[in-house]
Amino acid sequence: MAEFMTETEQSSPVVPHPGTTGERRGRAGGSDAGPYDGQEAAALLERTRTLVDPELRAALESLPGSLRRIALYHFGWQHADGTPARDNAGKAIRPALVLAAAAALGGPTAQAAAVRAAVAIELVHNFTLLHDDVMDRDTSRRHRPTVWSVFGDADAILAGDALQALALRLLAEDPHPASAPAAARLADCVVELCAGQHADTDMERRAPDEVTLDEVLAMSEAKTGALLGCACALGALYAGAGDEDVAALDGFGRQAGLAFQLIDDVIGIWGDPRHTGKPAGADLASRKKSLPVVAALSSGAPAAAELAALYAEPYVSGDAEGVVRTALAVERAGGRDWAQTEAADRMARAVQELSRAVPAPEAADGLLALAEFVTRRTG
Amino acid sequence: MAEFMTETEQSSPVVPHPGTTGERRGRAGGSDAGPYDGQEAAALLERTRTLVDPELRAALESLPGSLRRIALYHFGWQHADGTPARDNAGKAIRPALVLAAAAALGGPTAQAAAVRAAVAIELVHNFTLLHDDVMDRDTSRRHRPTVWSVFGDADAILAGDALQALALRLLAEDPHPASAPAAARLADCVVELCAGQHADTDMERRAPDEVTLDEVLAMSEAKTGALLGCACALGALYAGAGDEDVAALDGFGRQAGLAFQLIDDVIGIWGDPRHTGKPAGADLASRKKSLPVVAALSSGAPAAAELAALYAEPYVSGDAEGVVRTALAVERAGGRDWAQTEAADRMARAVQELSRAVPAPEAADGLLALAEFVTRRTG
Repeated sequence: MAEFMTETEQSSPVVPHPGTTGERRGRAGGSDAGPYDGQEAAALLERTRTLVDPELRAALESLPGSLRRIALYHFGWQHADGTPARDNAGKAIRPALVLAAAAALGGPTAQAAAVRAAVAIELVHNFTLLHDDVMDRDTSRRHRPTVWSVFGDADAILAGDALQALALRLLAEDPHPASAPAAARLADCVVELCAGQHADTDMERRAPDEVTLDEVLAMSEAKTGALLGCACALGALYAGAGDEDVAALDGFGRQAGLAFQLIDDVIGIWGDPRHTGKPAGADLASRKKSLPVVAALSSGAPAAAELAALYAEPYVSGDAEGVVRTALAVERAGGRDWAQTEAADRMARAVQELSRAVPAPEAADGLLALAEFVTRRTG
Repeated sequence: MAEFMTETEQSSPVVPHPGTTGERRGRAGGSDAGPYDGQEAAALLERTRTLVDPELRAALESLPGSLRRIALYHFGWQHADGTPARDNAGKAIRPALVLAAAAALGGPTAQAAAVRAAVAIELVHNFTLLHDDVMDRDTSRRHRPTVWSVFGDADAILAGDALQALALRLLAEDPHPASAPAAARLADCVVELCAGQHADTDMERRAPDEVTLDEVLAMSEAKTGALLGCACALGALYAGAGDEDVAALDGFGRQAGLAFQLIDDVIGIWGDPRHTGKPAGADLASRKKSLPVVAALSSGAPAAAELAALYAEPYVSGDAEGVVRTALAVERAGGRDWAQTEAADRMARAVQELSRAVPAPEAADGLLALAEFVTRRTG
């Protein structure tokens, strides 16, 4: 699953403020600061780490020695040799969504009660990262070598299995009345994440013209949207919310997750590597069937045929001109505009879902700030 | 984790009947029929399949199409192309232990209530099989090609992940008061299974003289004993048993699991392939650090040095004489006697644990019949 790049310069907001729902924002420069300047999100994320880390760390420390070392390396708390490392465990967006959702619907009491659920979400997220990296043969994660590349495939698979078990144990041991429905929902989400990753690995093997835009959208929703939705839904459950509000919070997270994925795909093609840490055009060089590319290929525009021909040939290492031509073809076939419009549309839907369950703007502020944080990237 | 070979001719009982606790039985021919002739176990297993299969099948059918197909193939209910296959889902020993433990401590009502827990145990068992086969590169399971060898590593990993989630979802959705402690216990067991598999893959990489007997015993308990113990403990929980009885049932399953592993290792060296389906000496040819081998190596007997020298050399394909010499060295160094004595000892401990929680012989009969079934193999 895509990781939110923590080093990305924050600008170009996609999230409309409540009241501007449905408004389309074009790709903007850094001047369009939007309603949230990122400081509220940063404060929420910092507070989340303070609340979540002790319980998360305790869960990992409960593992038998062999698995503990692998898990602590993955979370950035130890080097591969077992010596302590600087905390590099990521931004904790998902646990922050759990806590913000609980606070939005149930205030500070619900937020305090939901810490365990926030830890469970973070454990599940990291279990999928460990396994996805094995399947995708990704060698780097959060600027460090991935677990499989350091310890081997077996250790990465086993550590992931153990993290899933820890997540569901945390909820099973939680006496809160929401813990059982939360566990059932989280387990359902794991199945959806697996189906999303399966669709992704399957699509990688197919020719670009055999992949439809609906398929890529469904895959992105399962792979990225589902866990963000589940995080918000768990927060709602811990606030004692009814089915409709839980569903609305799930919808909010899902749509925000899709908006994030669309923006991430745009950056994978046109992003400035000085700002994103991701070389521009990397996704094109790897012939990735990202959302803008598949939108362009299925647009029926004249440039779609050119793009199809370019994608049919393997990338020749160092062919910067070929990458530029490919990016131009995606743009001329409308892939870039579509992705940006779709991202704004998804954020509008997210805000709409949220306003159904949380009508008071001040209660919704934390969730909106987080949603803007994850979708606000240098285009 | 080792699978109970369903085609094995049943004879040579290791399980002492209550009242003969502590009695050592030597390796016997088929004439020593013991207190259980296998018919009671066969009836229990058949009844378990009848109770468990509908719920198990429903759980698998709830998976998204892509994962469902992989899971149904693994359970032997579909061919790889998705067409229906003859049921070949294994003997269901672990769910039978759940139901027998529930019945022993809580009668028919508890047994009926524990079906979901029995399904959860079977799902966890199969999730570990899917992942272990990837790690161990095993190509055959229940006489069919393993999932990774048919669908690829990614599909095997994802299907395993989804089965773990299904198992814990079943318990999270179960309104029975035992479901939360059962889920916590099952999640703990998953962590222990992962640690056991980690120890196993780690020992495979080490030289035989760097592995101690205590390590191999601990690994076998985590890898094989833990899930059998958990199965019995879950049954006890669903019968409303107190902590001490739950612990005793866990101990019964663990010790019976270790006895099974010891017998399985003996068969891996001296077993008659006409009876076991496993070629005699296969474990020696692969230089497996099985319990009898490590016991022999650490015995201090003169034959231990000869065995160490033989194990230091890689197996030359077709060297039947070398295998015979190696088996003889294990035997002369006392590995065979040790394993058989230890197996009988473990079964005696299992029976002792059981009698603490279930003193009435008629109530204990089902569990004892199952324990004898799994440890009763042609030597």
